[in-house]
Amino acid sequence: MGAPLKLTGVAASEGVAVGPAFVHAPRELRPERESIPKGTVEEEIGRFRGAVEAVVRTLTQTAEEMRASGSGSEAEIFEAHAEMAEDPELHSEVEERVGDLTSPEAAVLAVGEEFAALFAEADDEYLAARADDVRDVSSQIAAELMGGRAAGLAALEEPCVVLARNLAPSDTARIPRGVALGFVVAEGSRTSHVSIMARSMGIPAVVGVGTALEGAFGANVVAVDGTEGYAVADPDEATVTAFEERRKGAAAEATALEEYKGIEARTGDGRRIEVSANIGSAGEADGAISWGAEGVGLFRTEFLFMERPELPTEEEQYAAYRGVAEAFGNRPVIVRTLDVGGDKDLPGVSQPEEENPFLGWRGIRMCLDVPELFKPQLRAILRAARHGNLKVMFPMVVEVGEVRAAKALLDECRGELEGEGTPFGEVEVGVMVETPAAAICAASLAPEVSFFSVGTNDLVQYTLAADRGNERLTRLQSADHPAVLALIERTCEAARAAGIWVGVCGEAAGEPAMIPKLIAMGVTELSMSAPSIPRAKKIISET
Amino acid sequence: MGAPLKLTGVAASEGVAVGPAFVHAPRELRPERESIPKGTVEEEIGRFRGAVEAVVRTLTQTAEEMRASGSGSEAEIFEAHAEMAEDPELHSEVEERVGDLTSPEAAVLAVGEEFAALFAEADDEYLAARADDVRDVSSQIAAELMGGRAAGLAALEEPCVVLARNLAPSDTARIPRGVALGFVVAEGSRTSHVSIMARSMGIPAVVGVGTALEGAFGANVVAVDGTEGYAVADPDEATVTAFEERRKGAAAEATALEEYKGIEARTGDGRRIEVSANIGSAGEADGAISWGAEGVGLFRTEFLFMERPELPTEEEQYAAYRGVAEAFGNRPVIVRTLDVGGDKDLPGVSQPEEENPFLGWRGIRMCLDVPELFKPQLRAILRAARHGNLKVMFPMVVEVGEVRAAKALLDECRGELEGEGTPFGEVEVGVMVETPAAAICAASLAPEVSFFSVGTNDLVQYTLAADRGNERLTRLQSADHPAVLALIERTCEAARAAGIWVGVCGEAAGEPAMIPKLIAMGVTELSMSAPSIPRAKKIISET
Repeated sequence: MGAPLKLTGVAASEGVAVGPAFVHAPRELRPERESIPKGTVEEEIGRFRGAVEAVVRTLTQTAEEMRASGSGSEAEIFEAHAEMAEDPELHSEVEERVGDLTSPEAAVLAVGEEFAALFAEADDEYLAARADDVRDVSSQIAAELMGGRAAGLAALEEPCVVLARNLAPSDTARIPRGVALGFVVAEGSRTSHVSIMARSMGIPAVVGVGTALEGAFGANVVAVDGTEGYAVADPDEATVTAFEERRKGAAAEATALEEYKGIEARTGDGRRIEVSANIGSAGEADGAISWGAEGVGLFRTEFLFMERPELPTEEEQYAAYRGVAEAFGNRPVIVRTLDVGGDKDLPGVSQPEEENPFLGWRGIRMCLDVPELFKPQLRAILRAARHGNLKVMFPMVVEVGEVRAAKALLDECRGELEGEGTPFGEVEVGVMVETPAAAICAASLAPEVSFFSVGTNDLVQYTLAADRGNERLTRLQSADHPAVLALIERTCEAARAAGIWVGVCGEAAGEPAMIPKLIAMGVTELSMSAPSIPRAKKIISET
Repeated sequence: MGAPLKLTGVAASEGVAVGPAFVHAPRELRPERESIPKGTVEEEIGRFRGAVEAVVRTLTQTAEEMRASGSGSEAEIFEAHAEMAEDPELHSEVEERVGDLTSPEAAVLAVGEEFAALFAEADDEYLAARADDVRDVSSQIAAELMGGRAAGLAALEEPCVVLARNLAPSDTARIPRGVALGFVVAEGSRTSHVSIMARSMGIPAVVGVGTALEGAFGANVVAVDGTEGYAVADPDEATVTAFEERRKGAAAEATALEEYKGIEARTGDGRRIEVSANIGSAGEADGAISWGAEGVGLFRTEFLFMERPELPTEEEQYAAYRGVAEAFGNRPVIVRTLDVGGDKDLPGVSQPEEENPFLGWRGIRMCLDVPELFKPQLRAILRAARHGNLKVMFPMVVEVGEVRAAKALLDECRGELEGEGTPFGEVEVGVMVETPAAAICAASLAPEVSFFSVGTNDLVQYTLAADRGNERLTRLQSADHPAVLALIERTCEAARAAGIWVGVCGEAAGEPAMIPKLIAMGVTELSMSAPSIPRAKKIISET
């Protein structure tokens, strides 16, 4: 045990922890056999397919667990991995090599490495990240073929702080529940898989500490501060005590917040503020309700359209929207129509490769240009509206003509449904105020709609011309900037003049420092990630 | 000769033309010999190197001509091609194959194709475009090796309208001056090489007409309308007459505009409006003056930093800035400090690959983070200021802190120069208003600076969240949008209150419909591409 060593990194998942150190240093996975005897090809291909099936089963199960616990974006990671494991190109490459008497474990590792190298070569951080995904998936298949040799993390029993150069999604998923107290990782950023997973699991994490991590490999005990973004290897007694007290304080706060889950939040002077959840898939509805969501302020519908060979049918969309509508009963659910750009593939829609997808052909722009994409969604929403309290909201609006055109399509859909004798319900229409143009022109938009919902993440991004995913621009990623506040104020004034209400559905809606400011401007609904709801209700009550 | 056939495409270069059709259908370039006799390797490598030198010479000469005629960005295309021709990787690959007795023409074509395939594979339209560049360059070297067989376009004598699937920069450069009356091209967009070249050469062009072009391959005569974006193959007599009259009208207008070049523009009520040029390199100064520029409203300094192995020295920058300052004498030259993002490589600066480079780490953000990049530029500007009337302008500002930090660095540079005894001059400081945040917070920025310059291209792009290079968003690429106008108005009001002046240096500054609106808001300087200056002066005089 050495002197205390402080490791500074990125605050990836909040909270503090102290515990024994466990160093996850996976040996490189090597095939047990390079080749196989003649005459066993059929059998080995069968083993390979069986291993793929087992891996896909585990991945799908993990994804389902994630989704059930309200972690839609984490679930997507595992779904994407399952899809990679089933990639026909991977299969034909591997099986061809097995046909040439290469062992399946050697073949899948080699092919995985080649595919990964192709991604890595692209010199693009998104594709490069997919290289790690491919490696992770092919290693899992190889490990499965070699008798599930994945020991290490899976065998952990005692609670500990995990130190690693990197942690793949399959690594974090393999750790038995309750065992990992914290993560300290050399690589990664706030948007890395490990960070997303840690937040979803509620485990404190510091990532991106760099090679300094190696200095901590001999430590007995490690203290992690995922709120401030540092860790201490072999902390002195005072540090341990301080961390322990903070941990207890946080746990006490979480317990204290329990009582706020169920309340209807009102400010000190009696103004009622609705606190809702942002959800990214139909499966997150129950999780959101259990956190105390009084509705859904932002139901992102992209999950229905992603990573699939064809567009979802109207029926499929209807079932998803109806499910959420029913889960919330007469509580409002605001369905945001599709917002996908050149950064994500949409089946059956010809999308240009875009240099700046956040400034691209997306949201209402694409939907108005491709009515055969938009109308099934509008019809599905109208039909589902019979089963609850649905509202519809259009994203990326910059001028009143877009709202009128979208409303005209909605009317067209109503007419069609009526003509067909298909039952449908009424939906209020709103605009997502997320471009500077929409905020500046709010007075001309307001008479067209029943509500505004300010998407602060995008509004910040466009107003300050700063990509919210860009790690070098963190100082420009807060809604607490005079220009952004001025635009929200302008939106609220226009809404007041027109007699409509304003909600906020960006990250700012859940930020303790922003909540009083937003309420003061006249915002009456705040929609956020479900776990932030109890604290937001408490802050409102104290405002 | 058939019935008239209308081809609709993209208006790539304005003006109209009618003339005989010339179809540029290059046969695929094939090597004369596949292999060479033993013992001639040294000699053939020598021939290869000679061919490269000849191609580089031609490319460099074309680049110099372009630059001298004020077409900096066109010059860059040829400079980039020259650099590709000299690529050591290309050379070693080709020479290795010649060593194995492949003929140099076969080797350079094969290697060029392989390099191009690598670019094309990237599934990115920018890299894909570089694939065409590589093919163009390797074909030129091969053609040179085979005795300069490039006939076709180079052999044209009679004026004609050129029809082609695509035109490489080397194609357009090869056409004798005055021979091409117009271009009709199947592929491409407004930002394709052929479009840029056509605008620079003042030749009407319609691009992106698609496979419909093939229907025109048998035409005798073609009429091109590069203003509206269509062409007519085998036009009837009425069309020919109408086109001829429009062409004469345009020529007459150009002559009439001649007299405006030299005037100082004043509005009808006597307000003086300064009309300046945007330039992208030091070599464009003389061209701008000959168009009647009364100064430089935007001197982009990126050209000094691009496509080179190391950053430019302070001396090199000093020479460039001094050259422009001297060319304009006591007329103002506004130097915009470096604005490069993740879409362009900067030597010696570690830049992240960015998903949305227009929303990235660029402009003043990067410069403040990397003072060793910024300070030599500021020192060079200060030193050059002795030789003329230089002003400095900071790009991508979103808050007052950035302006103060940049001014502090400028003061630091003044202090250093003073301490060293290096002479320098005074420069006024301005802010480029190109983010919504800067316009909204103009009242807090104004007291810090001597002037604002509204960069309408970026301001439109961020306000409407629409990449100005995105072809699907053309309806969202005009400054004549109520939200953008409101931001310019707000900027002008803040400037008036603080007693500073406002210029406009985006495309809107040269647009006939925008000029009166900008002047009405209080703008007193308009900076534009040099060829637009005479018309702008005329419009101001009539306002």
